[in-house]
Amino acid sequence: MEKQPLILVTNDDGITAPGINSLIKVAKDFGELIIVAPDKPQSGMGHAITVNEPLYINPSTYYPGHKAFTTTGTPVDCVKLAMHLLEGERPDLIVSGINHGSNASTNVLYSGTMSAAVEGCLDGIPSIGFSLMDFAHDADFSGAEIAVKKIVGEALNKDIPRDVCLNVNIPKLPASEINGYRICRQARAFWEDGFEERTTPLGKKYFWLTGEFENYDAGEDTDIWALKNGYVSIVPTQFDMTAHHSIAEINSWEI
Amino acid sequence: MEKQPLILVTNDDGITAPGINSLIKVAKDFGELIIVAPDKPQSGMGHAITVNEPLYINPSTYYPGHKAFTTTGTPVDCVKLAMHLLEGERPDLIVSGINHGSNASTNVLYSGTMSAAVEGCLDGIPSIGFSLMDFAHDADFSGAEIAVKKIVGEALNKDIPRDVCLNVNIPKLPASEINGYRICRQARAFWEDGFEERTTPLGKKYFWLTGEFENYDAGEDTDIWALKNGYVSIVPTQFDMTAHHSIAEINSWEI
Repeated sequence: MEKQPLILVTNDDGITAPGINSLIKVAKDFGELIIVAPDKPQSGMGHAITVNEPLYINPSTYYPGHKAFTTTGTPVDCVKLAMHLLEGERPDLIVSGINHGSNASTNVLYSGTMSAAVEGCLDGIPSIGFSLMDFAHDADFSGAEIAVKKIVGEALNKDIPRDVCLNVNIPKLPASEINGYRICRQARAFWEDGFEERTTPLGKKYFWLTGEFENYDAGEDTDIWALKNGYVSIVPTQFDMTAHHSIAEINSWEI
Repeated sequence: MEKQPLILVTNDDGITAPGINSLIKVAKDFGELIIVAPDKPQSGMGHAITVNEPLYINPSTYYPGHKAFTTTGTPVDCVKLAMHLLEGERPDLIVSGINHGSNASTNVLYSGTMSAAVEGCLDGIPSIGFSLMDFAHDADFSGAEIAVKKIVGEALNKDIPRDVCLNVNIPKLPASEINGYRICRQARAFWEDGFEERTTPLGKKYFWLTGEFENYDAGEDTDIWALKNGYVSIVPTQFDMTAHHSIAEINSWEI
């Protein structure tokens, strides 16, 4: 019998989040799982790693029948710790999510879900982050599960290109209303931040981050367009952040 | 008299780090400063933002004669909070650093210093992250200060291209031994991680992240090459992480 693929599952909402439960439910039909996820919500952690604190790993019984661990670290720490636990064995695929909330466009930078996938990509492992455009704890993941199944299946059949991982976002729609899949570029869209100022009972001012996400990109080849039009968006994502096109211009600087 | 440029200064090592002191010393000759920096070290925080906790801002007297504030947040939080404090006034330049330690190559992803610059770039503000290849608290920043002066001066004269910020790394060399400046691409180099396992006095196992940074990229157009050869490296850095070149390939997937 052929060896089953080994699939590392992680997320940023923590091991008890319904989104990772959906991901596990789908991924288990494709191979053997190792689940290494944060022991608490780690939303907005981006590519943070823990350098000034020790990390702890605890076995988890939350998913009976699967090798599962929680860590005290960030999503990127979870990938690094999983590689350590695997002692040289390499996963065939890393899946992260399903995130409760969109990671389309520039949200890729803030996203712990996607940063775990990018970290897998840095390790040379095919990696995919999945996000559903619904922040609710009790979001309906049934449409997302169908998308995960299709994409995981194809990712194990075909090769994700080297140094590339996938940022998959799924619209908040019943499965029957999803129009299909679009391979997209990241839209040029930004958070217009605000802060709500409040006062503690002891009279000290504090600030809560708020904001609106604004799209400045009319391109029909973007993830935002795809999602607005009922498609699952797939953005091939790379860790090379070089603005290659502007090297020549800055070369003209007098320094 | 013409209005002086407004320069926002931040970092990830915290407001009392010698590196930000050097940056302030140089930047103050170019304009009016607003300093908004973390109240504690925030190394390795990447593009993390604080979403589940309130943030505090405190005025700081650490740099007399300058408007200075500490925050309880990450470097990216500091940029967002600074924009809030400025009530609509926009900095002409954001400078972040000088980091104690390299942020060349893929370190850009983990770096709080560079993530603050990327956040400024998302806001449409010319932004530069500076890092010295010396982790020591008492590192010699005199060579770095010369580089900062040249680059800040030129950045205020020329325009940094739209949607681009600069990742500047400075070799650990006396000023007289620095060979000049190179505009580079990010090298394909990675952390080979390890974890040191230790045991608490109460017998619980914990893990410290360790590792070696390995370069797999012989290109003489890379930041790693430039730094090894005594040049200051300048990588134009973008927030578009789309792997545009692989959209066509993934379009052939059967999904």
